[in-house]
Amino acid sequence: MTTDDSSVNLVDDFVSVVPAGGVGSRLWPLSQPHRPKFLIDLLGTGSTLIQDTVERLGPLSAHTLIVTGVRHAPAVAEQLPATDASALLTEPSPRDSMAAIALAAAVIEQRHGERVMGSFAADHVIPDGDVFRDAVRTAIGAARTGKVVTIGIEPTGPSSAFGYIRAGEALADAPGAFAVEAFTEKPDEESAAQMLAAGGHTWNAGMFVVSTSVLLAHLARLQPTLESGVREIAAAWDTEQRDAVVERVWPTLTKIAIDHAIAEPVAAEGGVAMVPGSFRWHDVGDFDSLAELLRADAAGVYSVGREQAVATVDARGPVVMGGTKPVAIVGIDDAVVVETDEAILVTRRDVAQRVKDVRFE
Amino acid sequence: MTTDDSSVNLVDDFVSVVPAGGVGSRLWPLSQPHRPKFLIDLLGTGSTLIQDTVERLGPLSAHTLIVTGVRHAPAVAEQLPATDASALLTEPSPRDSMAAIALAAAVIEQRHGERVMGSFAADHVIPDGDVFRDAVRTAIGAARTGKVVTIGIEPTGPSSAFGYIRAGEALADAPGAFAVEAFTEKPDEESAAQMLAAGGHTWNAGMFVVSTSVLLAHLARLQPTLESGVREIAAAWDTEQRDAVVERVWPTLTKIAIDHAIAEPVAAEGGVAMVPGSFRWHDVGDFDSLAELLRADAAGVYSVGREQAVATVDARGPVVMGGTKPVAIVGIDDAVVVETDEAILVTRRDVAQRVKDVRFE
Repeated sequence: MTTDDSSVNLVDDFVSVVPAGGVGSRLWPLSQPHRPKFLIDLLGTGSTLIQDTVERLGPLSAHTLIVTGVRHAPAVAEQLPATDASALLTEPSPRDSMAAIALAAAVIEQRHGERVMGSFAADHVIPDGDVFRDAVRTAIGAARTGKVVTIGIEPTGPSSAFGYIRAGEALADAPGAFAVEAFTEKPDEESAAQMLAAGGHTWNAGMFVVSTSVLLAHLARLQPTLESGVREIAAAWDTEQRDAVVERVWPTLTKIAIDHAIAEPVAAEGGVAMVPGSFRWHDVGDFDSLAELLRADAAGVYSVGREQAVATVDARGPVVMGGTKPVAIVGIDDAVVVETDEAILVTRRDVAQRVKDVRFE
Repeated sequence: MTTDDSSVNLVDDFVSVVPAGGVGSRLWPLSQPHRPKFLIDLLGTGSTLIQDTVERLGPLSAHTLIVTGVRHAPAVAEQLPATDASALLTEPSPRDSMAAIALAAAVIEQRHGERVMGSFAADHVIPDGDVFRDAVRTAIGAARTGKVVTIGIEPTGPSSAFGYIRAGEALADAPGAFAVEAFTEKPDEESAAQMLAAGGHTWNAGMFVVSTSVLLAHLARLQPTLESGVREIAAAWDTEQRDAVVERVWPTLTKIAIDHAIAEPVAAEGGVAMVPGSFRWHDVGDFDSLAELLRADAAGVYSVGREQAVATVDARGPVVMGGTKPVAIVGIDDAVVVETDEAILVTRRDVAQRVKDVRFE
């Protein structure tokens, strides 16, 4: 871990939250249930996506909480040796993003009193850390006005892979923030192109910055049993009763995404703001988008961390990941070949999103 | 090894010769320099191609000589435990098919006096053993008239993968045999279609049946140093001088294929006859032709000897060979995926012949 000069700009009452869940099933077999995307050094930089995420947040906040599943907690702890054990919130089972983020909010209030929290997925790639942190600081300012604040990524094209945020007027009391009129689910390409042409639409990267008390108050109104449940768990979290309370209450928490539980209904009430993010952002959803982040070698091959050779015959631009053996590709352009200890995947970049449908009998 | 009822039809003065050379480079990485095609159980029948070849010839001849390279002699001996050590003629280095076949002819004459010999590649697939042996018996009869006799495979289509034999009139003194007017190198598809439409053309499978004295007499005229060289080696073969003579003479033998050394010039002189073969014959040149010999499983997958699963998403008719890992193929029809301990190959059936061009830097 390194810090940079921005560390002098720590925001005193800000706590980062990193929900670390999701396998990344379109990156199978690199990602697998036992080795989710956030634990992988996907770009071959020498650090994993969760390590990059925590390092990116370091200059903003003295505290960063990681919320992850019991299965991955040991690997997360190993990958983040500087993280205190108390900063690792372990879920006994996955109950979607609202339970994870609400638990973090309740634990933060229990430990520190009201704080501004920012939730950022563990498996996104953001090369421009400084620009990202500037946007977060702007969002923190807007959150102090009582809004649920999201960071909207400025689209680089009419993608159908992301949900969209439709922004309204600039907010007078929150410089750099705009009212959010609505969230839109992943559109088809035509609708995406229309939104881009209309302007005022940004990508929803699932980034939320909000005061813990505002978040929990919305939750108390909209998902009351979920709010009371995480409050009860948080009260016991740093006590000897944690395991017993978690075991009893956690399985009762409503399984719902924060988008549906909070973002959409609160936006409809005028309670959500958006701060535009002009940093580069990639969710690296599949091998096609992964290849976009790599530089081809002299032979035109996109690969990460391989020692072994790739030979091509009439096969342009292959993506070759993992593996310990030489790979030869003959007569298939834009091929994707992934070999792990467990399996071999063969596909093409333009259909790589369908990797999520792979099922073995 | 099993024998069948045809064993009562052993041809007393007939000796089979099996040149076992050629890597089968379009079947890489299944086939490799250290594991050539003829040593592989390519069809998953439980026996290798050379085992099948020797078993197929067993009912015809009391003696079968194998000519193979020093590198493969131990594996050949291991795969053919019933074969006497004296039946294995080991070449110290590859000097093309004429040297291999001429050495066999000279050793046969040295050991037995004049015989009719038949040379058949070690790596072809011929499911109809009885029909094949009937054709060979007809060819043996024609060879007794002093002709070099080849067996012409009746074409199943206008293939550009094989050379063609143009036949002329039926030979009065050799029932079932025809004069050969010319051998044609592998044609383009249009020429192949024209030859099929014209009739009288069969595929050249490199099968030659000929009296040893006729073969060696042609060789003495057309390649005199090659003839004298193999005679000298054969005279020493079953003596203590073998190694010394082989070491001195073998490297001087002209490197030439039997087609160019004997078949083409002797055909031009009217000395070659053709016996049509109506048996199924496959040289299994690449993974596309290999797949044609396999039956797809219930999921439409062509594979041999795999325990592990194959999963497909929008990918019809994959050919999956070798390997110990599950394989998933997404969005590529007719894909070919081959995994060995050494390497991974990814291609498509329609371009599988280009596998021979794979080169690692």
